[in-house]
Formats: sequence, structure tokens, C-alpha cells
Amino acid sequence: MDRITPVILCGGSGTRLWPRSRKALPKPFLPLVGEASLFAATLARAADPALFAPPVVVAGSAHLGLIESQLAEGSGALTIVEPEGRNTAAAIALAASRLPEDAVMLVCPSDHHIADQAAFADAASRAAALARGGWLVAFGIAPARPETGYGYIRRGEALADGYRIERFVEKPDFATAEGWLAEGGYCWNGGIFAFRAGTFLEELGRHRPHMAQAVAEAVRAGREEGARFHPDAGAFARIVAESVDYAVMEQTDRAAMVEANMGWSDIGNWQSLRDARDGDADGNVIRGEAELLDCRKVMVETDGPRVSVVGLEDVIVVVDKGEVLVTSAKGAAQVGKLKGAASQ
Amino acid sequence: MDRITPVILCGGSGTRLWPRSRKALPKPFLPLVGEASLFAATLARAADPALFAPPVVVAGSAHLGLIESQLAEGSGALTIVEPEGRNTAAAIALAASRLPEDAVMLVCPSDHHIADQAAFADAASRAAALARGGWLVAFGIAPARPETGYGYIRRGEALADGYRIERFVEKPDFATAEGWLAEGGYCWNGGIFAFRAGTFLEELGRHRPHMAQAVAEAVRAGREEGARFHPDAGAFARIVAESVDYAVMEQTDRAAMVEANMGWSDIGNWQSLRDARDGDADGNVIRGEAELLDCRKVMVETDGPRVSVVGLEDVIVVVDKGEVLVTSAKGAAQVGKLKGAASQ
Repeated sequence: MDRITPVILCGGSGTRLWPRSRKALPKPFLPLVGEASLFAATLARAADPALFAPPVVVAGSAHLGLIESQLAEGSGALTIVEPEGRNTAAAIALAASRLPEDAVMLVCPSDHHIADQAAFADAASRAAALARGGWLVAFGIAPARPETGYGYIRRGEALADGYRIERFVEKPDFATAEGWLAEGGYCWNGGIFAFRAGTFLEELGRHRPHMAQAVAEAVRAGREEGARFHPDAGAFARIVAESVDYAVMEQTDRAAMVEANMGWSDIGNWQSLRDARDGDADGNVIRGEAELLDCRKVMVETDGPRVSVVGLEDVIVVVDKGEVLVTSAKGAAQVGKLKGAASQ
Repeated sequence: MDRITPVILCGGSGTRLWPRSRKALPKPFLPLVGEASLFAATLARAADPALFAPPVVVAGSAHLGLIESQLAEGSGALTIVEPEGRNTAAAIALAASRLPEDAVMLVCPSDHHIADQAAFADAASRAAALARGGWLVAFGIAPARPETGYGYIRRGEALADGYRIERFVEKPDFATAEGWLAEGGYCWNGGIFAFRAGTFLEELGRHRPHMAQAVAEAVRAGREEGARFHPDAGAFARIVAESVDYAVMEQTDRAAMVEANMGWSDIGNWQSLRDARDGDADGNVIRGEAELLDCRKVMVETDGPRVSVVGLEDVIVVVDKGEVLVTSAKGAAQVGKLKGAASQ
């Protein structure tokens, strides 16, 4: 059986993790859970040579140094350098164009956390089996709560290794999310996909012919530079940015899913980061010098100054390079709106 | 009519205002409300030459520089330098011993805030009138809430310029405080007192003869140095530290009070400081660079780093010299228990 090719996407700005995440050192390259960066953990998760071929990394030029310093010597990785960000459909299409058409791709965002490695590998194997059968496969994350910040997938009829997708649904309101949780059959759309390179390009050509053409031209006119590939900037600039969900997965009639219950988090903001870390008996999570008095479910992260917290619950304090952020857990989703986050 | 002599007490550590208040620069010398330090504001409050004689300041040697830099040139102030802190009864006795026995003293802590100057002057005049009649007079602060952090005074029979004190009562529990507020006739003990120097020493001699004797000896064996007076350290060291409330006011049968409704606060912790400052429309109070998003009744005080706060209510954030404190308003009373506050 052919091995799976991990395709690691390094886009996104992560302003909701300001002031820790900044443009120069964004979220994938920070050791937010455990000792390794999320990017390094993503690579490690798909590094078993029995199951996985060398990865393809798609990234902007600003972070090439960070990326290549974390790729192991002789890893055989290919890095595709995007002239500018054009969202996930184009990024995946670039990777697909540089692979044999029978290669099974496993598309992974570089800034997610997955606690259960065995469950991930198991889901990847099932997804690959479906992909070999010509399906475009999404990972459906077993929903842990009535989350309103994610898109959902409605499960359809059963297949040998998963399910057809009945439909993709947009971020719901809270009552709707609660109803889906009670009803069952709904999963979070984790942004992880598997398909054969050829199948993907075929479906892209069917549903987004202009994008498929522009990508093909950007690849044809591109240049290799060692383990880097530079698509042609002029052709790439003509692409309209769209997510793979919108451009392909929601359009195709070959959409399938595997269910994955693997301790997944997109670490989308400080609250989800707190939840992904192990807390003490009071649920407090501390990195750096801190003293907590009469606190519960408080997270402190400081790069130096001592932080003392008294009498609070569900509050997050971050001190990083001279910026101090204090947010309620619930307010964490708004952090990207702060002037500091917007103007960094 | 003889003028009143302000006696300004500069003791106390103010650990509950850590990390802003530190041993080297404690609470009285910080501009916590408005532009002037609490000490300077205390001096200014009792500076009208029509009503007040030059002040006597009682302080430890550590803060002499701070004190003398804030005393106006030619103010005629006398500074009594305590060899070590021995609580308020001894501090007041030292000042009384250096004044004519008919001098009316107005004893003022140096770290309180009083918003209404006219009400203060009016209460001081009434207290002085009672003091001239031989009473030992306490300021009874009109209680604004069922506060459990203060001692109370129970009003007794009416006198020409105030009331006899029926009794002093210790810090109550919340239900008791609520009952007193509903019942009326109870005031907060503001720690501000007026009496003739001779009357005070007479009563001290009656109720604390050992202390009176040790103070008399410390003054007799002391030495003058310009506008400073240094009591003898050996004699002073024999004094048992007691508050003036406990040593004299609660013992004497000549205790009287004036009622004072003057916007008083002891600025006892960060919560009371927040309440003493003017907030914006949402009740937020900011000093330094800060951005607040979806916040109410939040106080931020920073000496440099920008502070961003999201989605919180009744929370106080203080950044000072590399320390970061985040406390609930309610938790502010516990700040003195933090390692940072205790070990500074």
C-alpha cells in the first residue's frame, strides 16, 4: 500500500493568541502545548515512515527560516513557497500539482493540537482507504461541547471506512449547536482532509476551473530551488482566495468523512489553549513565575515578570515582550480585535 | 481662638497596595488620588493659616527625605523622628509632649483620602471646640456601606458640638454591619482625633502610666536637630506598641465624637482606591497605557507596559516595576498576603 503524503499548511495569522503570537513568530512556531511547537508536533504526528511519505509544507516566504530549521536533515520534505496567501484551496492545489496523481495527501493545518496520536493514526488510515477509493475525505471531530465557533459536518450513509457527508453546515448559534449535540450525527469540521492528488485536481477543475488553470500555470512557470518550489507569482496572483471547504468539499458529490475522537483542538484562542493544557487540582495552568491566591481555572503565561493573581476564576493573564493581556475565558475570542493585536 | 496643630502620622506599611506601594516608597508618598501624594494632600488639607498652626509630623527615619521634600520652605513644621514604630498611642504622645499643654492637636493619618475639604474643615472646627472643652474627640465617619473592615463608634448623648461616645466597637461581621446601618447611630472610626495636648497626656498617664513615663523620658533625653526632634531610642524601645484607640480612647470617660460626612476613604486596598478615583461611563479607571474591551468597573494602573483587558468586571490590574498584579475587587483585601507583598 502506498504511503500517505502529509501536506502541512502554514498560513494564518493567529491574532487571537496575541501578544504571544506575533507576525514574526506566529502560532504554528510557538511551543504552546508541551515542549515542541505546534508545527513540529504536526510533523512528528505524521512522521512514522511505515505510514507516511516525506511531507510537503506550504508556507509564505516570511517563515521559511523557521520551517526549515524544524525539518529534520534528510527528511525529504518539499517546501512550496507561496508568493502570497490565497487561502487553503490554492495551497492544497499547489501541493497536489507537485505530487503523482495517485499520491494520497493528508492535509493538516500546522497549528492544531491533537492529544491522542494513536486515534489520529487510525483516522488517517481510514481516511486514506476512502481516498484510494476516490473519495474526498474530511475528518469529522467528535464534538465535545455545543461550540459555536466551528463549522459542522452532517454524517450521511455508512461506507466501508467512514460515511458519506450529507452536508457541511456553517457555524451555528448556541441553541442549534446544543440541538445537534443531543441529536447526534454532527461532527466538527476539523480542517483535516485526505484525497488522491489527481482526484482533488479533477474536482477543483470541475468546480473552480479558473483556479485550477491558474494553479497549473503557476506550477508550470515555477522554479525549483533545492527542496523549495516557487510557483510563478504572476499566475498565482490571479487566484481568488477561497477555502478548500467552500471551493471543493461543499461542491463535490464525492465528499466523505471519517470520525475522529482524538483530543483535537484548533487552539483558536487563549481559552482553547488553556483547555488543551493540563491544569492543577484547581484547574489553574501556569507557565512562568506566578502566584495564585484563591483562584480557579486561571491561566498565567509570562515571559519574565512575576504575575500575582487573587480571587479570580476563568481568567487568563498573558505577559509577553512588554505587553500585558488580561481576559475572561469567554472574552478570549475577542482578543484579535484589540489594537495591540491588530497593529503589531 | 488658638489655632489647631495638625499632627500627621506617617507610619504603616500599606502592603495591601503592593506592588505600587513598597517599603522604600510607601502609600503616603504616592500620588494615588489626583496629582499630589496622600501625605501632601493631608498637609494641604490642614494648611489654612487662619485655622491651623504649623504641623507636627511623626515618622520613621527611612522616609525623612520624602517628608522634608514635601514640606514647604518656611512651613514651620516640626518632624519627630521615631527610632522605630510603636503604633499610634506613642506617636501621638511624642507630639503632645513637644507642644504647649493647651495646644489643640488634630491627629491625621497621612494616607487617607478626603474628597470634601469644606466638610473636613467644618468637622475639624467642631472637634476643636469640643477639645477645648476637655474632650478627647474622634471623627465619626458617616458609613457609606456595611463595611466589615473598619471599627465603629456608637454615638451617645448630644453635646454642644457633637456627641459623647457610647462605645467603640470592633470590626463587625456583615450581618451586624447591615443591622447597624439600618439602625443608625453608628459611624466608622476614621482614625482622626482631636484633643488638647495636656488632656491627652493626662489621660495617657491615667490609663497607660508606663507608656506615659517612657515617652516623657524619651522626650527629656531626646535631642533637637534643626526642625527635627529625635526622642531617645533607649527609653522609646521600652514602650509597648498600642493603638490610640485601645490605649486611650476606649479607656477614657471623656471620649466624644463629631460626625463627618466628607468623602473619606482610608485607601486601604486597591478596591477602595478604585472607588476613590473618578471612573468613566462604564466605571473603568485607567492610569497609564491601556485598552479595555467590554469591561466594567475595571481599574488599570501601569507604569509602562500596555495593558489590554477583555470581558471583565470588577477586576484590578496593576503593573509596577516588573510586577503584575491581577485581583478581583473583592480579593483586593488579600493582596498583602502575597509573597511579593510580604517579601519586598
